[in-house]
Amino acid sequence: MTKEIIDVQNQRDHRNIEIDKVGIKHIRYPITVLDKVKGKQRTVASIDMYVNLPRQYKGTHMSRFIEVLSEYCDEISLRSLRTILEEMNRRLNAKSAHLKLTFPYFIEKKAPVTNTASLLEYQCSFNGSLDDRGLDIIVELGVPIATLCPCSKEISEVGAHNQRGEVRVAIRFKKFLWIEDLIRMIESSASAEVFSLLKRNDEKFLTEIAYKNPMFVEDVVREVAQKLNQDKNIIWFTVGAETYESIHNHNAYAFIERWK
Amino acid sequence: MTKEIIDVQNQRDHRNIEIDKVGIKHIRYPITVLDKVKGKQRTVASIDMYVNLPRQYKGTHMSRFIEVLSEYCDEISLRSLRTILEEMNRRLNAKSAHLKLTFPYFIEKKAPVTNTASLLEYQCSFNGSLDDRGLDIIVELGVPIATLCPCSKEISEVGAHNQRGEVRVAIRFKKFLWIEDLIRMIESSASAEVFSLLKRNDEKFLTEIAYKNPMFVEDVVREVAQKLNQDKNIIWFTVGAETYESIHNHNAYAFIERWK
Amino acid sequence: MTKEIIDVQNQRDHRNIEIDKVGIKHIRYPITVLDKVKGKQRTVASIDMYVNLPRQYKGTHMSRFIEVLSEYCDEISLRSLRTILEEMNRRLNAKSAHLKLTFPYFIEKKAPVTNTASLLEYQCSFNGSLDDRGLDIIVELGVPIATLCPCSKEISEVGAHNQRGEVRVAIRFKKFLWIEDLIRMIESSASAEVFSLLKRNDEKFLTEIAYKNPMFVEDVVREVAQKLNQDKNIIWFTVGAETYESIHNHNAYAFIERWK
Amino acid sequence: MTKEIIDVQNQRDHRNIEIDKVGIKHIRYPITVLDKVKGKQRTVASIDMYVNLPRQYKGTHMSRFIEVLSEYCDEISLRSLRTILEEMNRRLNAKSAHLKLTFPYFIEKKAPVTNTASLLEYQCSFNGSLDDRGLDIIVELGVPIATLCPCSKEISEVGAHNQRGEVRVAIRFKKFLWIEDLIRMIESSASAEVFSLLKRNDEKFLTEIAYKNPMFVEDVVREVAQKLNQDKNIIWFTVGAETYESIHNHNAYAFIERWK
Repeated sequence: MTKEIIDVQNQRDHRNIEIDKVGIKHIRYPITVLDKVKGKQRTVASIDMYVNLPRQYKGTHMSRFIEVLSEYCDEISLRSLRTILEEMNRRLNAKSAHLKLTFPYFIEKKAPVTNTASLLEYQCSFNGSLDDRGLDIIVELGVPIATLCPCSKEISEVGAHNQRGEVRVAIRFKKFLWIEDLIRMIESSASAEVFSLLKRNDEKFLTEIAYKNPMFVEDVVREVAQKLNQDKNIIWFTVGAETYESIHNHNAYAFIERWK
Repeated sequence: MTKEIIDVQNQRDHRNIEIDKVGIKHIRYPITVLDKVKGKQRTVASIDMYVNLPRQYKGTHMSRFIEVLSEYCDEISLRSLRTILEEMNRRLNAKSAHLKLTFPYFIEKKAPVTNTASLLEYQCSFNGSLDDRGLDIIVELGVPIATLCPCSKEISEVGAHNQRGEVRVAIRFKKFLWIEDLIRMIESSASAEVFSLLKRNDEKFLTEIAYKNPMFVEDVVREVAQKLNQDKNIIWFTVGAETYESIHNHNAYAFIERWK
Repeated sequence: MTKEIIDVQNQRDHRNIEIDKVGIKHIRYPITVLDKVKGKQRTVASIDMYVNLPRQYKGTHMSRFIEVLSEYCDEISLRSLRTILEEMNRRLNAKSAHLKLTFPYFIEKKAPVTNTASLLEYQCSFNGSLDDRGLDIIVELGVPIATLCPCSKEISEVGAHNQRGEVRVAIRFKKFLWIEDLIRMIESSASAEVFSLLKRNDEKFLTEIAYKNPMFVEDVVREVAQKLNQDKNIIWFTVGAETYESIHNHNAYAFIERWK
Repeated sequence: MTKEIIDVQNQRDHRNIEIDKVGIKHIRYPITVLDKVKGKQRTVASIDMYVNLPRQYKGTHMSRFIEVLSEYCDEISLRSLRTILEEMNRRLNAKSAHLKLTFPYFIEKKAPVTNTASLLEYQCSFNGSLDDRGLDIIVELGVPIATLCPCSKEISEVGAHNQRGEVRVAIRFKKFLWIEDLIRMIESSASAEVFSLLKRNDEKFLTEIAYKNPMFVEDVVREVAQKLNQDKNIIWFTVGAETYESIHNHNAYAFIERWK
């Protein structure tokens, strides 16, 4: 005799506690995102999807998150986030929905002297929430950069310690923007940019430009903050710079957050 | 001729932007923390230390963070955090200081039937800030647990899928508390506890107790939230439960945050 | 006056020590691989590329690795590995070349009862070497599975602890094979398979099938080893099974290696 | 009525396949290791423990690994490895035992000019196996270093790109050695050492010494290999150098392996 199947999730919960977020975490899925140059870019995302759960229900329906994800994974963009969040709320009978996608994004860069092309990887995440107060979207970017220490340059007879680092910028904004433009702005705010492919003349150029342009992590976050302050499309931002100090086994870090 | 050494960090910055946090990130250092049973416990922490930097200064003095850390690494506790933060502000001429220590913490547990003893690892972090509004301390714990799915139990003729998971609880509180007590409370809020060393009779006991006590991630966060709600010493908390579903390659997750 | 540019890498080294492998590590790049069903699959790989360096040369030419990668990243397959390795040896004047690509690979799976489709992620790596002894290719796969403990089932009145795990298989083989077939074989060698999307009837089916099919990590590696032993196309293999025990905070592990 | 408890692990397996390694993986436990200066050092290890399993047995006894670990965790050293492996074989009725401990190890270093003391973290692992061919021990160390690019220095008017890196050395040896001595040798084989705490004069010293001592990853592994070749106590080694290039978002890598 087969048991009659009971919908346990829809049973009543008596603890009287609303759950802020419930859903799936760390699922990885192939997605297609907008690409300013090529139109589309295929990548692989780590994804979290949550909704609220009212106090009276025992559980949510986890499979419906994957159904929504499967339907929309080929059209992920800052423009489609609202639609996906609405669909999550509709399918799961919820009032607030949260979707976070974190993915590597590749842009073709040209080496500064020889113009040789190669792809560089950036960390990108789209973090959207939709509830009765409306839609809230945060875009976050991780951009590799290089810094050369102003103090080391000043005090040393020759050379100056320099290192790779990462700038992480998160923003809230008014209208659609291309992450390519934001990345470009961040890359121009350090001692030097980094590239996947450099010929000897490019390496010479970058070594010298970094030496001429020494910056602390403090300088990097101030440079980026100044530009984000001036951009009227940005309404909130955080900027963090972390550098893998070549004289230490730990990192230097600076951070600024602003509502405008 | 040796260059005269200039203090670059103390030079004037003209961008007029205060930096919220600047310092060192991801340094690892041996520390000694309080242990309710043994008095002291030696462990290894990942540490972030930051202060603010007023708009007029170009840079902070990174070496002073390590000086403070070296002095206090043998007496880390919820009680000494204020002293360390004050010392950071004093040495770095700052108005706000931030210190985060994340470390594995081990507690001896006895197996439920045979009473065999072994150590279990918990993730612990102390996160303190001190500024003109006062001292703010957050304690965060990661506690491994097991859940057995109520839906799977209900619909299946035999068995029920179950899995390891982790509960993460962060709290703000009024007066000193032992993390051991908080861990104990969290472990008792799942389908079953986990142990490093179990003999056959213990395994039988845990298998059966989990089966008798099926819980969704939703149930786990509600159980913990209910207990934290009742504890008058807790003034704010978050609780998240993440389970490594044995039928999926992704995790289930639920989350509650409350100010009281 | 500009310095004349000297080729430092081609200078003579006097320590008289040949270097086994020199090149680039952990570069991430978008690649296109063969897909048995869809023809092609776009994904993102972590890549290591090395060649040998004879005793007399001071350094290799790092930029040439990226040049080769850029040319071949859209046609990665077990068939093209030889060509890429030959090109590495040619461009870098080397006698041995090593290329390792590690990437997530997605296959559409149908839920066992409702046939609902969703994508599941597998870890895949191609590891090729070419020197005067010829071409050596190792394919490695990481496949998520579930196990249910035979001991726990035997000793308990009800239920049995079960958990997610991962089987890692590495093989050397005679002629081209599809990783889809290897994955299928591995998935059928555990207590149950895992899926991204399951409806209630699928969950019931998997819970019951796992209960009827209890397996230790020892059983899983023996099952897989038995099948790999019987496959005449496989000339060497390793198989490891690691399960995230739901009663412990550590993993169970078993491993077999065989030359045939 | 309670079931009679059957020893499932001791049941007969009919697939006729010996298992090379079976046991526990990724358990974390506090350990005490030898310290050349202080006598003892407390740290936290990630531990794998395996034995072989003859073809006729269905399963091993996982709890016994933890019993052995609990007994010996306070006396881990290159000298005690044999005893622990013998005990594993004895308790688990096995013929071959494998134990791998990976842990952070801290050494006090003095800054090169000011002599200011601070602790630096090194990655250490002890990997022991005992079977009828005898005892085999591999010690592996991960040592942070800095390199300055000879090519960048040569071609640039000013400066030279430099970066943090890590040298990983694994050795087999004849008689007991101190890891402190091995670390010292590795640190002296790069463009410069790294430190946790540096005052301004130390930073000047390190910047200049790195500039005077440019090294590729190729140079680093050759320097280390040359010293290991000369050390009669070492019978086998591998040395790898990986540097977090400050002009790229990927790493440079070189590797040498030698039997002597």
